[in-house]
Amino acid sequence: MKTNIITISRQFGSGGHTIGLKLADQLGIPFYDQELVEKIAQEAGFDIDVASNIIEEAPGRNPFVYNFVGRDAAGLSAADRLWAAEVKVIERLANEGPCIIVGRCADYLLRNRDDVLRVFICADQEFREARIVERFGETSVSPRKRLADKDGKRAAHYRYYTGQKWGIPTQHDICLNTAHIGIDRAVSIIASLYNNPE
Amino acid sequence: MKTNIITISRQFGSGGHTIGLKLADQLGIPFYDQELVEKIAQEAGFDIDVASNIIEEAPGRNPFVYNFVGRDAAGLSAADRLWAAEVKVIERLANEGPCIIVGRCADYLLRNRDDVLRVFICADQEFREARIVERFGETSVSPRKRLADKDGKRAAHYRYYTGQKWGIPTQHDICLNTAHIGIDRAVSIIASLYNNPE
Repeated sequence: MKTNIITISRQFGSGGHTIGLKLADQLGIPFYDQELVEKIAQEAGFDIDVASNIIEEAPGRNPFVYNFVGRDAAGLSAADRLWAAEVKVIERLANEGPCIIVGRCADYLLRNRDDVLRVFICADQEFREARIVERFGETSVSPRKRLADKDGKRAAHYRYYTGQKWGIPTQHDICLNTAHIGIDRAVSIIASLYNNPE
Repeated sequence: MKTNIITISRQFGSGGHTIGLKLADQLGIPFYDQELVEKIAQEAGFDIDVASNIIEEAPGRNPFVYNFVGRDAAGLSAADRLWAAEVKVIERLANEGPCIIVGRCADYLLRNRDDVLRVFICADQEFREARIVERFGETSVSPRKRLADKDGKRAAHYRYYTGQKWGIPTQHDICLNTAHIGIDRAVSIIASLYNNPE
């Protein structure tokens, strides 16, 4: 079966975003990462900054955001309305044609399609600590805590909306550890799977 | 860094053994799976059938085997003596030159070498159920229970001796889901990583 969509789930600092960008360039197909949050905000009728904050503060991890912020007349929280928009936007993008989607539970949302290559990018702790400091600079919070916090939110969001654990090998077609495989070899393996259907 | 050793951890029924065999054939390097249990039994001075049974009944999963069977004068259980032999045999094989080692915590035991490619092979439940029935036939136990039992023992053995969870993406360089990637594409990805060091 021909692959049309590549979903990339990734641990923070593992290089998943960079791999997605390089793949999009090499394969000549659209790439959605931050652009996806913009589309979701627009779909739900939210200001982009408000949407980003709510999406960042995963429900399940932060009961305040989930339970109290912005319930509408139907009793849906802001987080739930953003989730509904996320479902719609991701299905629409997948139907529009080949693309690469980073994060946002896209692997789960597109699980019933057989033209999706579901990738998980991870890396050793030290590799990721060094990478976030190099890319985003030092902050008052230790790199270790920044990684745990970001991945904790990703896992909580995934768990809350999909009922599944995040980062399990069987939920993906391929998991690559960039600390050992390297970003360029990861790109070339994924591109080869995209170009050579089984 | 050149890869010399490929370790393959695998869910039962995922095709890890077949992938190892095909790789060994393609790369022209030795392959150790059941042969490893024979070498470990010999090293520990056990009959192969006794060793196989004890190794199969993972300590941690089966406290009887661990706590009571065959303690020697030094108070080591038979399972612990086999583990000590396993450590020795795997280190010796890795020092002898390029090879492929299936199972037996080899990924963990060789973690301090930088010439090891650590592979995890998994697959969807339905794929594995069909595969074990095709390869090993029906038994009075359901395929689902056979998978859960075998993988439960592998996870318990791994957890007991390494202190780590089994089947976590970051503990491997690459995880492949054969239900989606297919056995032949898995072989070709691993062979390409072996032949093309970063």
